[in-house]
Amino acid sequence: MRVVDVQLGDRSYPIYIGEQLLEQAGRYLEQHGLSKQSPLLIVTDEQVAPLHLGKLEQSLQAAGFRFVTAVVGSGETSKSVAVFEEVMTRAIEGGLDRKSAVIALGGGVVGDLAGFVAGTYMRGIRFIQMPTTVLAHDSSVGGKVAINHRLAKNMIGVFHQPELVLYDLSTLQSLPAREVSAGLAEMVKHGLIWDAEFAYWCLENAERLKALDMEAMGYGLEKGCSIKAIVVSRDERENDLRAILNLGHTIGHAIEAVAGYGEIIHGEAISIGMVGSAMIGEALGAKPGLKDTTSQMLQALGLPTVLPAHLDTDRIMGAMMHDKKFQEGRMTFIVPSAIGVVAIDHNVDYDLVRQTVEQLKKEA
Amino acid sequence: MRVVDVQLGDRSYPIYIGEQLLEQAGRYLEQHGLSKQSPLLIVTDEQVAPLHLGKLEQSLQAAGFRFVTAVVGSGETSKSVAVFEEVMTRAIEGGLDRKSAVIALGGGVVGDLAGFVAGTYMRGIRFIQMPTTVLAHDSSVGGKVAINHRLAKNMIGVFHQPELVLYDLSTLQSLPAREVSAGLAEMVKHGLIWDAEFAYWCLENAERLKALDMEAMGYGLEKGCSIKAIVVSRDERENDLRAILNLGHTIGHAIEAVAGYGEIIHGEAISIGMVGSAMIGEALGAKPGLKDTTSQMLQALGLPTVLPAHLDTDRIMGAMMHDKKFQEGRMTFIVPSAIGVVAIDHNVDYDLVRQTVEQLKKEA
Repeated sequence: MRVVDVQLGDRSYPIYIGEQLLEQAGRYLEQHGLSKQSPLLIVTDEQVAPLHLGKLEQSLQAAGFRFVTAVVGSGETSKSVAVFEEVMTRAIEGGLDRKSAVIALGGGVVGDLAGFVAGTYMRGIRFIQMPTTVLAHDSSVGGKVAINHRLAKNMIGVFHQPELVLYDLSTLQSLPAREVSAGLAEMVKHGLIWDAEFAYWCLENAERLKALDMEAMGYGLEKGCSIKAIVVSRDERENDLRAILNLGHTIGHAIEAVAGYGEIIHGEAISIGMVGSAMIGEALGAKPGLKDTTSQMLQALGLPTVLPAHLDTDRIMGAMMHDKKFQEGRMTFIVPSAIGVVAIDHNVDYDLVRQTVEQLKKEA
Repeated sequence: MRVVDVQLGDRSYPIYIGEQLLEQAGRYLEQHGLSKQSPLLIVTDEQVAPLHLGKLEQSLQAAGFRFVTAVVGSGETSKSVAVFEEVMTRAIEGGLDRKSAVIALGGGVVGDLAGFVAGTYMRGIRFIQMPTTVLAHDSSVGGKVAINHRLAKNMIGVFHQPELVLYDLSTLQSLPAREVSAGLAEMVKHGLIWDAEFAYWCLENAERLKALDMEAMGYGLEKGCSIKAIVVSRDERENDLRAILNLGHTIGHAIEAVAGYGEIIHGEAISIGMVGSAMIGEALGAKPGLKDTTSQMLQALGLPTVLPAHLDTDRIMGAMMHDKKFQEGRMTFIVPSAIGVVAIDHNVDYDLVRQTVEQLKKEA
């Protein structure tokens, strides 16, 4: 069993990483002082529910907790205002009060949706995350939760830290290979922004990670969560440093928006975006080879590094203009200067970004 | 010009109370370091817009600020999820970024709606309040913002403090008498919970207040805001003390819900609720006369103190069960023991509350 402590003053919380944790969920909630009088709300999706909900419910029941459950459709469409309102209805009808907690059982979408419910129900109640994907290691640290507006992703949200994260590695076994790789994109990203040694470790252990070797996966998630925890604890509200976690995300979000959510999934879009960031890094003075090493790492983890040629460059640029990383008209990018070293550049030239997007369609 | 400083550490902010402040809004925003590159969003309603929006827009324009405006319908129905989403659309289309601010120009509904937009747009941007009602002095302190779920009022919200409040007394001149009185209910409430002298001052100056005498109104609003600021600064997130601000609100909210929002407006419902609280206080040991003095103060301010007989007691009790003041099944009430002195009682008997609601239909 591994534990990562996210240090955020009176909002600090632990992440437990280990096998068969869902079966012990009741005990963990008891230890953390959750109320047995106030009902819990479990939010999960239709893919996760048949696989893992039973174990969780059984464990909570055995420990004497009361709960109601909201099962939403799987995928990004559940981060809509309409689904948010439905889950709120469930919370109200279930009689949740100020001592209640919302549990997110699932991946990033469920975590974001459930977290925004927890952050706004009665102006904020307790929040517990139980990630079931590799990707969700990223969203389980830092308290950023949000839903989508039809015009822009993650536009409606708050900062709301969980009280506790139970990362049950056993749940990862049911993930399709494509989703495992997509999750590994965020894992290696934590190396690329902060820790070259960890980035190379991901490269060397790519096969073990893709095969869901529990020892390798446990270490990778612990390390990924730890790096993110350090960054977030130094800048909880994203005033400056925290922005480095967005490596690859400006281009990545635009790719997702233009491709239509689903054709290219989040981790894949971020992978292509990180290759683009490395290209921008080289154009701005990083040693040649940065882009090739970055691509090699991502490819080893089973990730795409080339942009599908049919995606229109102008539409991608247009989608970026809606992105939150633009302030006062200038383009802000997280730009790597070497593996493990990035800087926040607020003055990246629009034309350079455009050329990079074009280039991403050609190079492998 | 009067200034109330709301002390909340790094979230502290000033409330300026005076005449013709909207005409100087541009200068105030400039002094407070608002960005002229990032567009502002003004949220107001169709009643306030024709009266006051022009003055504000002119002042912002003259100072070189960019802005877009969202005019919503007036009244509680604009605190819906649907209207919230529309205002978000306006913010996105207007190109608001992280340095932008949302300005609430209007009463409590506009403040709540605009505040929730500011609190959740890109996970929280700056918020400025420009109240145009007496009632809004209450919501301009404390950072509680929320919208309604169709099943329950104020159920979806966050804590989001404004940066600045500009209270332009000149805007109050256009208020109907009924709304002035409704606002005075919250003003005298601040005396009833904290400061007997101020409660009696409200009684003695009732005629001047109802006639919108600027000197009396300025003092009353300053005092009301100051008392609330003291309470909120000691307990920003409503863990304990802050709950005393809910005097009269448990019964009041239930009355509003059952009467249908509109027949009895918020301040009126709170007035009846405060009489009920005084009755409960007497039943639990306060000196006889507490209820009569409370009623006398409220009547002097032009407020109702009797519950319309056609409102069904069982429905009122049912509506209370949905209220946020219930935790783990027990009934929590703010119970006065004298004018200016209240306590939080977590164990008020259900039957006593029911009898009180019945009694409220009979006594003047």
